[in-house]
Amino acid sequence: MSRTLSRPFDQVQGEVRQTLADHGFGVITEINMQDTLRTKIGVEIDHYVILGACNPTFAAQALSVEPEIGLLLPCNVVIRSTDQGTVVDFINPQMMTDLAASPEMRAIAEQVAVKLNAALAAL
Amino acid sequence: MSRTLSRPFDQVQGEVRQTLADHGFGVITEINMQDTLRTKIGVEIDHYVILGACNPTFAAQALSVEPEIGLLLPCNVVIRSTDQGTVVDFINPQMMTDLAASPEMRAIAEQVAVKLNAALAAL
Repeated sequence: MSRTLSRPFDQVQGEVRQTLADHGFGVITEINMQDTLRTKIGVEIDHYVILGACNPTFAAQALSVEPEIGLLLPCNVVIRSTDQGTVVDFINPQMMTDLAASPEMRAIAEQVAVKLNAALAAL
Repeated sequence: MSRTLSRPFDQVQGEVRQTLADHGFGVITEINMQDTLRTKIGVEIDHYVILGACNPTFAAQALSVEPEIGLLLPCNVVIRSTDQGTVVDFINPQMMTDLAASPEMRAIAEQVAVKLNAALAAL
């Protein structure tokens, strides 16, 4: 679940936040990996942000099916600069079924995947 | 990678932060899922916190091997109250090799797993 866009990093970051909101996902964590690595260990990388997207209704359902599922929450979205353009990667929520392969978890993961794919397609 | 402890939630949360720091992991994200679900959708759950633990040196190595690996960063640690006690779950970093199964990524994941297991064992 990845797209490469020609728009600049900062513009894409705003667009990603908007499409996530439009599709029911709040951004509840944010890591500026470029700043983190520069500050902590003096390593320079290109623009790299990790957003943690969460739909609270689906999160509550998933937690009631499998309390450990917080290990895979929130759904990460990576926005990064590359020579080919600004790349946006969305986590595939189907990996939640690695932790809990029950039919209930599959159903939740499928619904989240549909929404995240729609959010990615709208960019 | 999970332990059930008899100490209260708040004490365990402090102990988890300390053992992560002792083993080279900073906490770079924090989600109070109990507060989030109460505020956003009025759902009540027991104490539930997700900490995002990151060792910047290993993170930089992993990103240089596979730029998409941010989809699985940071390493989540869940602290939650249950009828059996305070449960601490650590993500198994071997799942990073699901995204990139190269020998380099395996070596990084193994080193992170050793450190996280040591941090968990010290609780």
